[in-house]
Order: sequence, then structure tokens, then C-alpha cells
Amino acid sequence: MEVERAKKDDDLNSADGGGGSAEEVSVERIFEESADAPPPWQNQLTFRAMIVSFILSILFTFVVMKLNLTTGIIPSLNISAGLLSFFFVKTWTKILNKAGILKQPFTRQENTVIQTCVVASSGIAFSGGFGSYLFGMSEVVAKQSVEANTPLNIKNPHLGWMIGFLFIVSFLGLFSVVPLRKIMIVDFKLTYPSGTATAHLINSFHTPQGAKLAKKQVRALGKFFSFSFLWGFFQWFFTSGDGCGFANFPTFGLEAYENKFYFDFSATYVGVGMICPYLINVSLLVGSILSWGIMWPLIGAQKGKWYSADLSSTSLHGLQGYKVFIAIAMILGDGLYNFIKVLGRTVVGLYIQFKNRDALPVNDRSSSTTVTISYDDKRRTELFLKDRIPSWIAVTGYVVMAIVSIITVPHIFPQLRWYHILTMYIIAPVLAFCNAYGCGLTDWSLASTYGKLAIFTIGAWAGSANGGVLAGLAACGVMMNIVSTASDLMQDFKTGYMTLASPRSMFLSQAIGTAMGCVISPCVFWLFYKAFPDFGQTGTAYPAPYALVYRNMSILGVEGFSALPHNCLMICYIFFAAAVFVNGVRDAVGPNWSRFIPLPMAMAIPFYIGGYFTIDMCVGSLILFVWRKLNRPKADAYSSAVASGLICGEGIWTLPSSVLALAGVKPPICMKFLSGATNSKVDSFLNPS
Amino acid sequence: MEVERAKKDDDLNSADGGGGSAEEVSVERIFEESADAPPPWQNQLTFRAMIVSFILSILFTFVVMKLNLTTGIIPSLNISAGLLSFFFVKTWTKILNKAGILKQPFTRQENTVIQTCVVASSGIAFSGGFGSYLFGMSEVVAKQSVEANTPLNIKNPHLGWMIGFLFIVSFLGLFSVVPLRKIMIVDFKLTYPSGTATAHLINSFHTPQGAKLAKKQVRALGKFFSFSFLWGFFQWFFTSGDGCGFANFPTFGLEAYENKFYFDFSATYVGVGMICPYLINVSLLVGSILSWGIMWPLIGAQKGKWYSADLSSTSLHGLQGYKVFIAIAMILGDGLYNFIKVLGRTVVGLYIQFKNRDALPVNDRSSSTTVTISYDDKRRTELFLKDRIPSWIAVTGYVVMAIVSIITVPHIFPQLRWYHILTMYIIAPVLAFCNAYGCGLTDWSLASTYGKLAIFTIGAWAGSANGGVLAGLAACGVMMNIVSTASDLMQDFKTGYMTLASPRSMFLSQAIGTAMGCVISPCVFWLFYKAFPDFGQTGTAYPAPYALVYRNMSILGVEGFSALPHNCLMICYIFFAAAVFVNGVRDAVGPNWSRFIPLPMAMAIPFYIGGYFTIDMCVGSLILFVWRKLNRPKADAYSSAVASGLICGEGIWTLPSSVLALAGVKPPICMKFLSGATNSKVDSFLNPS
Repeated sequence: MEVERAKKDDDLNSADGGGGSAEEVSVERIFEESADAPPPWQNQLTFRAMIVSFILSILFTFVVMKLNLTTGIIPSLNISAGLLSFFFVKTWTKILNKAGILKQPFTRQENTVIQTCVVASSGIAFSGGFGSYLFGMSEVVAKQSVEANTPLNIKNPHLGWMIGFLFIVSFLGLFSVVPLRKIMIVDFKLTYPSGTATAHLINSFHTPQGAKLAKKQVRALGKFFSFSFLWGFFQWFFTSGDGCGFANFPTFGLEAYENKFYFDFSATYVGVGMICPYLINVSLLVGSILSWGIMWPLIGAQKGKWYSADLSSTSLHGLQGYKVFIAIAMILGDGLYNFIKVLGRTVVGLYIQFKNRDALPVNDRSSSTTVTISYDDKRRTELFLKDRIPSWIAVTGYVVMAIVSIITVPHIFPQLRWYHILTMYIIAPVLAFCNAYGCGLTDWSLASTYGKLAIFTIGAWAGSANGGVLAGLAACGVMMNIVSTASDLMQDFKTGYMTLASPRSMFLSQAIGTAMGCVISPCVFWLFYKAFPDFGQTGTAYPAPYALVYRNMSILGVEGFSALPHNCLMICYIFFAAAVFVNGVRDAVGPNWSRFIPLPMAMAIPFYIGGYFTIDMCVGSLILFVWRKLNRPKADAYSSAVASGLICGEGIWTLPSSVLALAGVKPPICMKFLSGATNSKVDSFLNPS
Repeated sequence: MEVERAKKDDDLNSADGGGGSAEEVSVERIFEESADAPPPWQNQLTFRAMIVSFILSILFTFVVMKLNLTTGIIPSLNISAGLLSFFFVKTWTKILNKAGILKQPFTRQENTVIQTCVVASSGIAFSGGFGSYLFGMSEVVAKQSVEANTPLNIKNPHLGWMIGFLFIVSFLGLFSVVPLRKIMIVDFKLTYPSGTATAHLINSFHTPQGAKLAKKQVRALGKFFSFSFLWGFFQWFFTSGDGCGFANFPTFGLEAYENKFYFDFSATYVGVGMICPYLINVSLLVGSILSWGIMWPLIGAQKGKWYSADLSSTSLHGLQGYKVFIAIAMILGDGLYNFIKVLGRTVVGLYIQFKNRDALPVNDRSSSTTVTISYDDKRRTELFLKDRIPSWIAVTGYVVMAIVSIITVPHIFPQLRWYHILTMYIIAPVLAFCNAYGCGLTDWSLASTYGKLAIFTIGAWAGSANGGVLAGLAACGVMMNIVSTASDLMQDFKTGYMTLASPRSMFLSQAIGTAMGCVISPCVFWLFYKAFPDFGQTGTAYPAPYALVYRNMSILGVEGFSALPHNCLMICYIFFAAAVFVNGVRDAVGPNWSRFIPLPMAMAIPFYIGGYFTIDMCVGSLILFVWRKLNRPKADAYSSAVASGLICGEGIWTLPSSVLALAGVKPPICMKFLSGATNSKVDSFLNPS
């Protein structure tokens, strides 16, 4: 999913803004002069770190879940996680220090451990598929599709099986790549841009100037967090009923509103727009104009010819079908292109690595790296190799978890047979390695692409008669969790390597984080699911757009193209080809020109849900652009913090808002938007005098 | 009216912020070194100055008219008039200079002439009584009163007679005080704080640093002008129908909205709040809480006991009566107190002046003035006395105008007899002198108080049977125009004195400005009157609140207290006494403490129209307060410009908005606010499935 792309580009971005030049002098020498040696690994994994991680995990799970369920675009929250963990533990140690009972100072290793734990935990909110495959199994989504909504292909979410399923499948990824950490990090010296950026950030926090800047950034984050939270609160009062409130503000008129062009006053997506690169935001806008501005009106004009005029507006046999399937075609086209590209680079990279194996272990990709090993690398490698994790633990863990899940998963999804799972578990380590390696080279996790692969293969294998649609979705879950966790872990190892955190504490922290996530994420999802009665419906506050997309991919894989309305398949082919072509052109023209060519995957997102959030995101871009014009250094230093504040504040407001909804408290006022004519009708209805 | 108080305090304020310390060194020496001698008076009164004056007059008439018709609170717009006239002519001369055809450079004398002309012209929008006595004669307002709505006491506005009436009465004030200018300015050396502040401002514009600052201020003004204009434009789209749009946003809930507590998103009143001193804004807020938060609910609970429960909500026999008459009581109490106070100071001041006549002409009030005459004073006096205006012109002018108006005014208002007018014209010069003198001492124009005096005396004299209500209102107009113009002219002479502008050009500019105002103001009013169908009704966008207040004062004067509902007279007495008492306390405790005691007149304004604009104004205060905390010098330099931009932008938006209304263009959308229950009813009405 494009989520990863947003993540990737952003982290590259933040690396520029953050501590990009920190490597020019030896970081480790500076730290050696000013601080003590890193504590032993048991002391990196402190109790306070776990408490802070738990609190932040809940916070970020809410934020990620909200994003998941509204549009599916999730920007990187690494910076806010890093900032907030630094802030919390720093405050904690300061208070204890003042009370005179501080036993252990706050180190960057501990900071890395918290960061890792939080990212692992909130990552489950994404890879758990609450906005995609998992919720795609539910009756709510099935009813919106046309085919395959028999009970055999439906499994409604329930807290019990969701937690169980996540626990069984989420740990496999960890075990699968642990033994390879030395090869990836030390021998291959893969870059892992996100992990490197996070490490720079954490290192910078623990220098004196860095700590001062971090303090100011935290203040900016807090200010905008409060603003965003209060804004969410204020908006709430005016949302009594459907179509009420600021989220339905027809900023550009009612006609544009009907075509989903309006600014919905969402602080969250303004913040997301500030974090995502301009190109993504522009691609989204281009996509929404292309689809809702041009294509849907044109196809809508064929109503009665291409599709029956009697269909409800949400029927997949009508216009809605074009929206969903063309979006799927673009996503698959883009995904396939990049899958082949990254796989190609992985194979080439591996080939060169193994060819040069007897030579010095240099990074083949970066021509600036000299053959002599720097002081930093020496010290880091030394500490990275000190605390070993025996390979037998990894192998045993993987085998035990695999056996457990082969036995239990078919109990959760009877449609998925034991041999499906066994096959996946035999292939998975290879794919996990590929993904971890590719991610190290390109910062691009292909987890959701591997998931889609599983949908099509396993779904078709299980077959239409045996609930293949559900089997495909479940297989997607198994595959995505393994592959996604593998690359996340390796990113974290890179961060740990650069901050001298012990691999053991990193591994344990990731495991603990994953365990937390397996409980927190289903609970948060459950809260949303229970609190909002029209949850998951198209056009509501939480449409969970990818759930329908994933389900329909699975249907396509199992049932073929029979479900598609007239001419839809042809248009899908065109868009599939266009996505591949545009990606090819982007790569052909080089970075100077490709920054003017939109990304097909980003363009596909608004196809189905509409352009309102792209307006928000472009507003975010505009704010960032103007800010940079006015004061570039300040914008670079604070924009991430401000954006994180905006995203998190409204995200956290969903907690009280869903509690209010559960308690049956209705907002008192409806801010309604009526056309002049309707308004006179309503006025005479209300005041019949 | 409290308008003057806002004006007064503001100008004192801006004098602090503006060029307060400019007098420390000799201003005239600086100018002598850097520039040529002032041009002859004919060259101060240039054609371009008249063009610019005309454009700005229209602009400010719209702004003042809008303020007049919404709440009646008019802050001083001197600074924006000065800034904009400087900007326009500067641009003009710059362009001509570049084209090589500039004949005459832009001087501060010319700037003063424009300023004078604009203030004289837009002053008519206030003293013409379009929001008070003149519109109080109309049927719309009469219908909202209970008594005296016979045709005899009604005269609907019409372009013809309004222009005629204004032309007849507006010039008398000019002639009445012209001969006294030397006594007031040179001999008595009255301070005229507003005039002095304006002069400082203009002088500062024409120094090099001053010009640079002015340029920046103009840019700030322009930015906020555009914002405010576009905001007004944006709001317009959502106001199809009553109770729609941002102006009806129930910011603090529906209950508070019912009691007129809400933030109505008016950029104008946020700007007004930034210009008005904190005390005024706080007084307004206290007044609105006291009235709409406490008193009206309590009196409303007596419905059926104190007044009939069958009455419509706008009937003056019901709750509305309490609102209007208690407000009138407070306004009269405050007015009377200050009338006596200023009159007392005038008499004492004059007594001291004449006692010391043979001594040196020093300013008796200011102990810091030395007996030796400064260079500035010498030079200014010299130029002030150079261009004389013969006294016979003034006397002839006054007598001719008086005769003309004695003959014609009874044709416009048959209820007003020739002897009423003659009497007024005999007394008027004395009152005009008193007002000009009092204004020079305290910066406080009592024009509307003299107007109220005329309402009560002439109304009672004409008598109930002969249309006394209308006679009172017409008399108010005659008196107010004379007295108000007199003090304005003297303020301008002071400005001219300090900027070396010739009294002749000042007098002519004031006369031209008055003539412009006599045409522009009625036309602008006529545009509003024709464009908005529910114009002048309580609770609409343009309630013209003082029209009802003035009419009811006249009814009280003519008909006595018979119209008042039960217990209302008693409460009125209490509030009248309280207004006098609070003013007394304010004067007794001195300026250190009085800044914590609210002003009764400001408190009275929201009594009748509600607290919504006080929220806006307090928001303005808050913005200014925070801005000052963050960056005091910047706030002091730019807040007036920003506020003026906010006020003028939305004010000017009323021009296209009324043109749209006249053309029958309706806004497309209604942004409606419904309670949860009503909303479900409306939803099931609109979608009866």
C-alpha cells in the first residue's frame, strides 16, 4: 500500500531536516567524551522505559487506527515517537533527580529501546489489517461488495480471535531474520534510511544543543497537540447527525461537495500533508481531480447504458464498481512494477555482495565510503557483536510458533487449511529476508505487496467453493505480519547499531512491543467498532476504505472478473498499464524530472474515497511551503513537531469521542449545510406559520 | 452616545502608540532642514487631494454606516484615513515622478487636507443620524415601538429629503466657530488630543523613517484588509436565509446563542475590539453578562405577572421594553453626568482663561508648559495667522444658512415649526462653542448629548398632538449636526496648526468634505435600505439599534412614562442613578483605580442588542493583549493598522454584498444550526424513506 511510500519519502525528508550532517565528525567520540559507556543490555530495558512505551503505544495506536480507518494514509510518526519518549523519560528522570532518588540516568540506548517498542506496537495497528484484510472479512464490508457475501466468506471481528490470531502470526517475522542481522548491518552495511534517520534523531537529542532543540520542539508539538485536540473537541459539538459539522463543510460550494471536493477542517490531515512530501500531496490532488472531477462524471453520464440506473449508489455493479476496481488496478500496477524493481535490485545487490565476499565488507552502493573503517563503525560493530542472540533461539522460536499457528489458525479460519499455512511458512523466511534486504537498500517495505500476492495465490488455491475469498484475506494477514515485522526489526537493529544499543535489548523490546500491540490494537479497533454505529460504511466518518479494496482484490483473485460492470475491465487494464508506464517513465527520466511526475499509487487513493483529504493535505503542503519561504531554518526544525502535534491531537480526541459515543452522549448541535431552496423548505417546515 | 467615548479613548491611545515623543525635539526645525517651506494654501488644496478624498470618503462611509447599523460603536478611523491617504497620494506622486510629469511634491499640508476632508465626509455618516434619529423616524422603527406610530410621527427615509436636510443643517456648525479659531488654538492653547495625535501621525509620515514605517503599516493594513474582505465574501456563501451562516454560529452552545452569547466571526468587531481600550471591551462584556445573563432571565420569569404572556417577543410592552428603556436610562444617566462635568470644566476653564487674559497666553492646564514660547509654537502661530478667514464671511454664512433652513426645514418636517428652528439657531453657537471648547479640553464631543437635549425640549414644546415625537427627532438632527461639526472643525484646525496647513485650506477642505458627505452618506444608506429586506428589524443583520432607542427617547419626552411596562420605571430610576453613581466613583478614585471600574455607557449598549459583538471585541482585546506580551514594540506599531484593515475589509464587502442583494442574487448555501432533536426531525422530513 502507498502507506509505505509515504513513510519512506518522509523519513528521507526528516533525515535531511534532522541530524543529516551529524556524521561529518565522529559521533561516538563526542559521546565518549561527554558521557559514560553504554549500560549493559539489561539496564537499557528498564521498567520506566516499558511504562513510557506502553503509554505512547496506546497514543500512537489511536492515531494510526484513526488514519487507517479514514483514508489509509499513514505518515511516519518516528519523529513524534522519538520526541515524546525523550520528553517523558527526561521529565521522569528530572523529577526523580530533584527528589534525590534517581538511580540511573537516561541514555540514548534506553531512548532507542522505547522508540523500538512503540514503533513495533503501533505497527501492529497497521499490519494487523484493521483497515484492510481483517476488517475486509466482516459482514459490513461484504454487504458493500456484490459477490461472495455468503456466510462462508464472512467473519465478523471479535476481540478474542483477533488477539489470538495476531499473537500467533506476529512473532514469526522476528525470529525469521534475527540470525541475519550481522550480515545485513555489519557485513552488507545496508543503509536503512529510516533507521538511520531515527538514530541521528536520538543521537542528537542526547547532545546538549540537541536536548535544547528537542525541548523547544516538544513545546511546539505540545502546543499544536492541544490546539488540534481542542479543535476536535469543538468540532464534536456540531456533529449531531449525518452530514453535520465541519467535516462536511462545503468550502467550495455544494456541487463540489457532492463530488467530494471540500476542505474538511481536519487538523490531522493538514499535519499529514505537512509531513508527506509535496509530490505525494500533488499526486493525490491530481488523482482526485482526474477521478472525481473528470472520470466519474463521464462514467456517470453512461448511467443506464453501461450499468443499470436502478442500482443504489453504493452498489459495486454501478459507478462505485468503477471507482473501486480502477483504484485496485492502479494499486496493483504500481505494486507489481515496484515489486519487480525492488526484487531486481535485491538480487543484483546480493549477487554483488557475494561476489565481493572475500574482499573488504564495503557498501557497494555508496561510492563515497572509503575502504578504511571509521572509528564510529569500529566502535559500533564491536558493541553490536558483543551481545549475541544465539541462532538456535531464533530457529526454535520460528519452528515452535509455526507449529502452533499451523494448528490453531485453521481453527480461527476454517477456510484456510493447514497446508496453506505450512506452504506460506516455508516460503516466508525467504520473502522476509528479501523484504528486509530491499528495505535496507531502498527504505521501501513491500509488506502489503507480499500480502496481495498471498491473497491471489492462496485465494485461488483454496477455491471459490471453499471460501477462497476469506482464505485469501487470512493468508494476506499471515504473510503481511511476517514480512512487515522482519523489515521493521532490521530497521531497528540499524538504529540500535548507530546508538550503541544492544541487539538483545532491541530484540526483546521489539518482542515486548509486538506483544503490547497484539493486545492494544484489537482493543482500540474494538472501541471504534462498537462506538460508531455506521462504522465501515462508505461516506461516513470511518469508511475504512482499504477494507473494501482488499476484499475485492480477493474476490477478483477467486472469482475472476465476472463481477465487474460493463467496460470496467478495459478501463482497469488501461490504468494498470498506465501505472506501470508512469513508474517506468519516473525511473527513466531520473530524479530531476521525476519530481514533477505524479506517483500512480498516491493518485489511486482518492479514486475511491474522494478528494476532501487531499485538500487538507495540500493545505498542509502550502503552509509548509510558505513557512519555508518565510523562515527556512525554523520551518525545517519545527515543521515535523508541529505536524506531529496536529496529527496526534485530533487522533487522541478519538478516544474521548468514542467513549462519549459508547456512553450514548450525543453532540447537542447539528451544523447543517442546505441549498437555498432546501433551506426555505426546511424553514417553512419548522415554522409553519 | 458612547461612540464619542470610544473615539476619545482610542485617540489618546493611538497618541501613545504613534508619535507621542515627537515633540521632544523641535519638529519644525527638522522639517525646515529637510524640506521646503509649506506651499501656499491654494496648492495645499489640490485636485488629486480631492480625488483621493472622494474615494476614501466612500470607503469610510461604508465602514461607518455598517458599524452604525449593526451596533452603533464607531472606533476612531483617523489612523487608517491618514495611512491610506498617505499611501494613495504617495503612490500617485511616485507614478507621476517616474513618468517625469510630477509638478508638485506631496506635502504634509496636503495630507492634512485630505485627512480633514475624509473625516468631515464620513463624519456625516454618523452625525446624519442614519443609525439614530433619522432612521428613528421611519415606519419600520415606529412599528417596533408601541406609542406614537401614527402617520403624523412617521417619516420614511427618502434620498431627496435626506440630502436636502443634511445640506441645510451641516454647514452651520462650520460657520459658527470659525471666528473663534485663534482664541481656541493660539490663545487658549487647547490640547485637542485627537487632533494632536493626528498631527503627530501626519508629521511622522513625512519624515524618512516615518515614511518607511508607514509603508510597512500600509502593507499590514492591506494584508488584513484583503483577509477581512475575503472572509466576508466567504461567509456570504453560507447565509442563504435567516439564522444561517457564521454570524449565527452558536459557539458556546444553543442555550447561550438564545441569549445572544456567541462569537459571530465578525472580523470588523474583532478589529474594533483591538482599537477600543480594554476597559470599554470589558465594560461591554460586563454589561452583556449583567443584562442577558442575569437580568433578562429574571425579568423573563415574571412573564404573565409583570407583563402579558401573549405579547410578541419584540413588543415594547413586554421584555423588549425593559431592554430598551433600561438601556436608555443608563445612557441618559451617563450622558447627564458627563454633560455637567464637561460643562463645569468648560466654565472653570474659561473663567481662568479670561482672568489670565492680560498675562501670557499659556496653557493653564498643563503645568509642564514653560512661559517661553518654543520655536515650534512661534513658527506654527505665524503660519496659522497668515491666511485669515474674514469674520464677516463666517457671520454672513451662518445667517444666510440659518434663514434658508428656517424656511425649508419646516417643509421637510411640518411638525417642526420655524420658531423651534430659530430658537435652536440662536442657542446653537453657544453650545457649539461649549462643545468645541470642552472637546479641546477633554477630547470628548458631547454632540449626541446636545442632540438628546433637543429631543426632550423641542419634542415637549411641539407637544404630543402636533407630532412631537417626530419634531424631537428632527430637532436632534439639527442640533447634533451643528455641534458635532463645530468640534470636528476645531480638532482639524489644531491638526492644521501643528502641520503648518493653512486655516483657509482646512476650512475649505472641511466644507468640501461636508458637501461630499451630504451626498455620499444618504446614498450609501439608501443602498443598505433598499438591498436588505428586513433592514432595521431587531435580530437581523442590520438592526440599527439606536434608531429604536432614539425614537423611544423622543416618545418618553413627549408622552411621558405611560408606555413603560410594570416596574420598568423603577428599574430605570435605579439604573439611571447607578450610572451617575458609577461615574462619580470613577472620578473620585482617580485613574489608578478607575481603570478597573466599568463605564456605564459602554455597559448599556449590549443591554438591548445582546452580547455577541462584545465577544468579538473581547477576542480583539485578547489578541492585542497576547501580541503585546509577545512583542510590545511591534504590537504598538502595527495593531492600529491591522485593526483598521480588519474593520475596513469587511466594511467594504458590504458594498458588493448589497449590490448582490439588490440584483437579487441569493447566497447558494445555508449553514444552519439545529439542535439534535430538531435535526432528526428535519432529516426525516428531507428523506422520508
